[in-house]
Amino acid sequence: MSRLDAGSATLLGPGDDAAVVRAADGRVVASTDVLVEGRHFRRDWCGPADVGHRAAAANLADIAAMGATPTALLVALCVPASLDASWAEGLADGLTAEAARCGASVVGGDMSASPTLTVAVTALGDLGGLDPVRRSGAQPGDLLALAGRVGHAAAGYTVLSRGFRTPKMLVEAYRRPEVRYAAGPEAAKLGATSMIDVSDGLLQDVGHLAAASVVGIDIRTDAFEVPDQMRDAATALGVDPYQWILAGGDDHPLAATFPAGTRLPDGWLEIGSVHDGAGVTVDRKPWTGAVGWDHFR
Amino acid sequence: MSRLDAGSATLLGPGDDAAVVRAADGRVVASTDVLVEGRHFRRDWCGPADVGHRAAAANLADIAAMGATPTALLVALCVPASLDASWAEGLADGLTAEAARCGASVVGGDMSASPTLTVAVTALGDLGGLDPVRRSGAQPGDLLALAGRVGHAAAGYTVLSRGFRTPKMLVEAYRRPEVRYAAGPEAAKLGATSMIDVSDGLLQDVGHLAAASVVGIDIRTDAFEVPDQMRDAATALGVDPYQWILAGGDDHPLAATFPAGTRLPDGWLEIGSVHDGAGVTVDRKPWTGAVGWDHFR
Repeated sequence: MSRLDAGSATLLGPGDDAAVVRAADGRVVASTDVLVEGRHFRRDWCGPADVGHRAAAANLADIAAMGATPTALLVALCVPASLDASWAEGLADGLTAEAARCGASVVGGDMSASPTLTVAVTALGDLGGLDPVRRSGAQPGDLLALAGRVGHAAAGYTVLSRGFRTPKMLVEAYRRPEVRYAAGPEAAKLGATSMIDVSDGLLQDVGHLAAASVVGIDIRTDAFEVPDQMRDAATALGVDPYQWILAGGDDHPLAATFPAGTRLPDGWLEIGSVHDGAGVTVDRKPWTGAVGWDHFR
Repeated sequence: MSRLDAGSATLLGPGDDAAVVRAADGRVVASTDVLVEGRHFRRDWCGPADVGHRAAAANLADIAAMGATPTALLVALCVPASLDASWAEGLADGLTAEAARCGASVVGGDMSASPTLTVAVTALGDLGGLDPVRRSGAQPGDLLALAGRVGHAAAGYTVLSRGFRTPKMLVEAYRRPEVRYAAGPEAAKLGATSMIDVSDGLLQDVGHLAAASVVGIDIRTDAFEVPDQMRDAATALGVDPYQWILAGGDDHPLAATFPAGTRLPDGWLEIGSVHDGAGVTVDRKPWTGAVGWDHFR
């Protein structure tokens, strides 16, 4: 792995007892996520680079959701003795490539034999002088907006779980999230009052914003355009596409609240509003479907 | 978990998408280690708090070995469904207590079900304005010194593996390393030319200093005092105690090289010297025993 790429935050990369990463802001944002085979990924559904992209994205999105810019990843990998060495190499390639999408680098790691293939990733990030955007600042009257795809990965998951491999757009969305990392610091600069990485389903994660902020949040279904491929797959599989959109995980869009009247730049979609009360409603009514996304449970 | 303890580097603790940790230096030191049940620990040999202490110590010692002061831990925990919830609580207690020994806090984490009990820990630290002490700066003529116990954990491991539970001092040394975290920044201030956390055996890890620095290093066995309990256990078990001292892991002392004539403060033991050449010798001769420590392999 190359060290000290131009513009990189990596001051000392892998090979010593620890890495050294630039934290120009004087604070560092840090988050850890773990992916376990059979629970968070399946090797027959995702290649090693896909798992690397997914593991990195899940962590990097958490950094972006604080309003920070990711700088570095550290990876703990547990591999069964039977696993081909090329699998770990493919994983590393995916992690490195996903990190590069937001200017971060893999700076360190550890590897152990284990009966269970496990990838634990820690991401670091820099706030660039801004306050972190927490989950707890949403105010009645705020608008709710979303940056990034939602429901695509869940649709791909359903397609794969029924034994299909197409539509390719949905399957690929499951294999490789397209996270809008830059939207995190952008939201912070715009004055976002709260923000979260939607990893476990929009209703569930927006519910975390509502709970932490002690407000109610309503989501409008007419805000979402259902892509043709998603609508066709939903019809073919007998699924309500809004179940994917409202309760599907793994796309990692950012959901944020902003003061009413905030002019949202391209890439942000206004999807609802904050009001006095508690919990999350859909078109002003309780949602009767599943609210969350529990991977393979 | 309490947030924002006085003097703590924790600016935002668990509960949001990511934690925020003070990095006053403008750089952050980061390292990850993973412990897998049956490979790095056994639940019949170590209680959950012991495993927490060991997992934290393994990571915090890596931060100290760069000359930095640990500030924070993040923990990814994978637990079998059959594991009692109190086990995870005990683990958290051990992690928190060990972190507190060097002024650090557990700031975040993730938990997943898994068939294999696995603890992946990431530690962060602050250099306090000093340059990181790498493995690569040892110079011919330097002295080699050690801060902290060595061989004790390996002796405890051998005792446990033969089915005994005493001497207690050795078994406890295996269960809970006593890492001299403050010795890391102390060495950096003293002008250490290279440093490493001895986690895999003195010969093996000093070998990493020799390789990275392109020098030879000689270790003098007469530098070590073999404690009575270790000598008695060695005799009873038919083991050469120097095998524990020279090749045993898990105590996490810091090994560092300093310019000749450096006056070492209390707690540092001069154990050898650096010369032109390559590799590690013991009393000027090649060591014919095992050089490393492979846990349960």
